[in-house]
Amino acid sequence: MNALKQKIFAEGRALSDTMLLVDSFLNYQVDAALMFEIGREFARLAGPLHPTRVATIESSGIAPALMTAHVMNLPLVILRKAHAPISAPGIMQTEMRSFTKNMVYQLTLREAYIEPNDQVLFIDDFLAAGEAALGAAALIERRGATVAAMGIVIEKSFQDGRKRLDDYGYRVFSLARIARMLPNIEFLND
Amino acid sequence: MNALKQKIFAEGRALSDTMLLVDSFLNYQVDAALMFEIGREFARLAGPLHPTRVATIESSGIAPALMTAHVMNLPLVILRKAHAPISAPGIMQTEMRSFTKNMVYQLTLREAYIEPNDQVLFIDDFLAAGEAALGAAALIERRGATVAAMGIVIEKSFQDGRKRLDDYGYRVFSLARIARMLPNIEFLND
Repeated sequence: MNALKQKIFAEGRALSDTMLLVDSFLNYQVDAALMFEIGREFARLAGPLHPTRVATIESSGIAPALMTAHVMNLPLVILRKAHAPISAPGIMQTEMRSFTKNMVYQLTLREAYIEPNDQVLFIDDFLAAGEAALGAAALIERRGATVAAMGIVIEKSFQDGRKRLDDYGYRVFSLARIARMLPNIEFLND
Repeated sequence: MNALKQKIFAEGRALSDTMLLVDSFLNYQVDAALMFEIGREFARLAGPLHPTRVATIESSGIAPALMTAHVMNLPLVILRKAHAPISAPGIMQTEMRSFTKNMVYQLTLREAYIEPNDQVLFIDDFLAAGEAALGAAALIERRGATVAAMGIVIEKSFQDGRKRLDDYGYRVFSLARIARMLPNIEFLND
């Protein structure tokens, strides 16, 4: 997706060979017009799979996922990050480790908001080691629903998350695939 | 805003005389079409004030704020909740207490994303005691910018947040003002 790649070229900052700062349009500041275009692109790519619901993880996934849900006229479900396990009916959790933030949290789904016959389009801002996407997929599938596809805004293709998702057989749509970040950001040709 | 009030009637659940669950369309599950209508309504109300930027607090404020930014064609800045103080150039923080979650956090602004001459439209999902709105306003004003208006999706009018914001002179647009929640949800006439 060219508009996104140009934005990454113009404003992304590689802090190391694995850390990319995109605070100016995706995290701290959000470019709403770009998010809408991202939503349209995910809708174009995933539309033929007829998803029945969009899911994401708070909080940086919300903006691209909301626009995708809006364009596709689907409900959005947000998987939340809880600090501690919750023992309550209707709550499903799986323990996650954030490598970026060096912390453990409970990825949390209220099962009322995903039905067993749902075809879920999972959207996230980044794909790196794949932990978040695999955790989300585990919850969706434990609920009895199906992951129709995964839509990733920025894929760090030099990490092994994409390969792991491919190996599991997930259909992945990445809008910008970064081959390397230093000395310059380079994208995979695809 | 009628569509919102009807949604609150149909799906909101009062857990006590002060706690309202709107998980099914605003927090865990997000009704993207309703968020778009909310964005259009905030744009209609705040448009004449010519804001230059939309701001919100992660993560439940993001959906209505993003749609407002989209409709108004403005950038969105997200104030994040950090667990600890961050000593770094360009970071502004103020300590906040969440009564609902009984925790302390640092509301965090990257000052690069608000300019001193900005007229900021602050959007949030709830207004109760007003702590979050006043904390956000404090950061915006410490940056030298102006709070053009505050847009609130659901105001708990039986708590004193609205009065506090009025007393400070902020312009507040609340789309649903709840007079009381038990035994039945009742709205203020306005």
